[in-house]
Amino acid sequence: MTSFRFEILHRSTRSQARVGRIETPHGVIDTPSFVAVGTNGTIKGLDNDMVDAIGLQLMFCNTYHLLLQPGAEMVRRAGGLHRFINRKLPIITDSGGFQVFSLAYGSVADELKSRGTKKTDGHVLKINEDGVSFRSYRDGTKILLTPETSVAAQKAFGADIIIPFDELPPYHIGYDQLKSSLERTHRWEQRSLDEHLKNPNQQAMFAVIHGGIDPELRRQSCQFLTKLAFDGFAIGGSVGKNRLEMVEMLQTMMPHLPEEKPHHLLGIGDLDSLHACVPLGIDTFDSSYPTRAARHGLLLTQKGNLKVEKKECAEHFGPIEEGCTCWTCQRFSLAYLHHLFKAHELTAYTLATIHNLHFMVELMRRIRQSIMENKI
Amino acid sequence: MTSFRFEILHRSTRSQARVGRIETPHGVIDTPSFVAVGTNGTIKGLDNDMVDAIGLQLMFCNTYHLLLQPGAEMVRRAGGLHRFINRKLPIITDSGGFQVFSLAYGSVADELKSRGTKKTDGHVLKINEDGVSFRSYRDGTKILLTPETSVAAQKAFGADIIIPFDELPPYHIGYDQLKSSLERTHRWEQRSLDEHLKNPNQQAMFAVIHGGIDPELRRQSCQFLTKLAFDGFAIGGSVGKNRLEMVEMLQTMMPHLPEEKPHHLLGIGDLDSLHACVPLGIDTFDSSYPTRAARHGLLLTQKGNLKVEKKECAEHFGPIEEGCTCWTCQRFSLAYLHHLFKAHELTAYTLATIHNLHFMVELMRRIRQSIMENKI
Repeated sequence: MTSFRFEILHRSTRSQARVGRIETPHGVIDTPSFVAVGTNGTIKGLDNDMVDAIGLQLMFCNTYHLLLQPGAEMVRRAGGLHRFINRKLPIITDSGGFQVFSLAYGSVADELKSRGTKKTDGHVLKINEDGVSFRSYRDGTKILLTPETSVAAQKAFGADIIIPFDELPPYHIGYDQLKSSLERTHRWEQRSLDEHLKNPNQQAMFAVIHGGIDPELRRQSCQFLTKLAFDGFAIGGSVGKNRLEMVEMLQTMMPHLPEEKPHHLLGIGDLDSLHACVPLGIDTFDSSYPTRAARHGLLLTQKGNLKVEKKECAEHFGPIEEGCTCWTCQRFSLAYLHHLFKAHELTAYTLATIHNLHFMVELMRRIRQSIMENKI
Repeated sequence: MTSFRFEILHRSTRSQARVGRIETPHGVIDTPSFVAVGTNGTIKGLDNDMVDAIGLQLMFCNTYHLLLQPGAEMVRRAGGLHRFINRKLPIITDSGGFQVFSLAYGSVADELKSRGTKKTDGHVLKINEDGVSFRSYRDGTKILLTPETSVAAQKAFGADIIIPFDELPPYHIGYDQLKSSLERTHRWEQRSLDEHLKNPNQQAMFAVIHGGIDPELRRQSCQFLTKLAFDGFAIGGSVGKNRLEMVEMLQTMMPHLPEEKPHHLLGIGDLDSLHACVPLGIDTFDSSYPTRAARHGLLLTQKGNLKVEKKECAEHFGPIEEGCTCWTCQRFSLAYLHHLFKAHELTAYTLATIHNLHFMVELMRRIRQSIMENKI
């Protein structure tokens, strides 16, 4: 019923890395692929015409944020997210679970750094088997997020790939609690899938594997979820407090995922993690790292990261990186970008974001090429 | 020696309005023309490629700001302002006097509203016959601004039209003080012109007529400055505390300006003033009004201003204005723009600015057409 299709074009002879092709109703995603985050239906500082022009094949939008503003019903009336935001290429939405549980427990990063949750983010009222209710920080409205309401919202948005509702347990949690959270997540994902399959709407649904950093629970999660009719598998929950823990966890977990389905790593997309995870068989990565870095004046280049506000950049009248074909480098010098950052001009954030996103698109193209040549 | 040239194509039979054409080394400015302000070498939220695409023929950059960041010497090393900011079309720079005297006295608006000057804007150290010295609010550097240093900076920038250094007197000032300020301004403008003519560099220099709201002093200022070899005349200083005072002042003053030279009104460009001043013979207007309004969610339309954050806009799935050919209206709905503003997305400011600037370009085109048809 769905026009979603995943095809593996080449498997590296040196690792689990593979080059693939995901077909969706809004076009193809060549994998491994970097997925930029456009939380509110726009990548910060860019318009969706530019995002298409950069060649970003998949954009990640957040159901939690879109639920609060403009609301699922408004997007439905606009004719779906693609029409509302005027994006022609594929979109993936999450379930809203990650954000709402971050409100309740704080994010992993918050926990590790002993930060509290942001008070402005509203608060969770109740968590039970049905789902979660919370208050909108925007207008105080009470919102109920359950497997069924999350999927209903994602139907209204009409993204090409959607995510079942899951529970995000705190990072510091005992085994018994983690296990019962995992069981609830499995029940919620099953309910989400059932709701989704009532009206597939040409959308694909990727399960979210949980189990924290416990290898056995991760294995159980793979076992349970891979038996269900999901179109792909995302790795969620805590993947460890550093890259080493993450890689170890993925190494033991990945063999339990069906090879013929796409594998997505949720919320991870810094360069080192990307290079570490592609050989493990991850196909898509979403992360706000390159776009957030851009807004903080950190430019990605093949020679490493460049801090645009550094004095050395003030007189560099060539492009950010020689030979870069991005829209920014074709038109503006690093010195001008330095000036715009120093002058706190909005245009700075836009031009830097274009460059970093183009860098990611090109990086993934090179990574696919390397896999084709069995170099990864 | 300069390739600057002004030609009047048509004079209205009903008013002093005229349609003209200013030729500069970087292209033509059709007058009456709206001049957008790109203080730091960029119109806030836009890149200069988009500004060209919108058809903005003249951009106003501020010498004071560019002196502090990146500095005149850096722009000179970059090959001038056009190359540094990658703008192909004409640029006008001011002398820096306006901002530095606003530091000393506060702006007219500040005075009328009894506001103090912003402490973050640095402070003036000394004002004497030579010029003004002040401290950079950025790094505490002492900067001397005189007719000669202002012109030297504007030579380094290389704008098509430059402005002589003048004194901006406070709005509340007695006749004797205003008269002696005017005399100093005349001496400074003469010195600026002398400095400019040592190396015209294909740049044009527009005098700034002063005299506050005193008709006789304005007349004297016209008389003095029109005898000198300026290429055009700008109206500066206080033009009154409301539109009526301004129009009255212009009515008595404009007949004292040579008809065959371009007339610029400094810092005024709201729609009502524009409509009031075109019939008095003003050719060019610079103002940050349409771009600042855009960033505050005020969209210009032929039916009046539209507050994008109003509830009515949330479900308007058509463009901001039916039939608008701007880049934003061709791609995005008012509802989406409303959403982006509500979500505080940077993209909102960009899309709104594109629309408002396009509106101004189109408005001036219609105004020129009306003058051609003797309807103004």
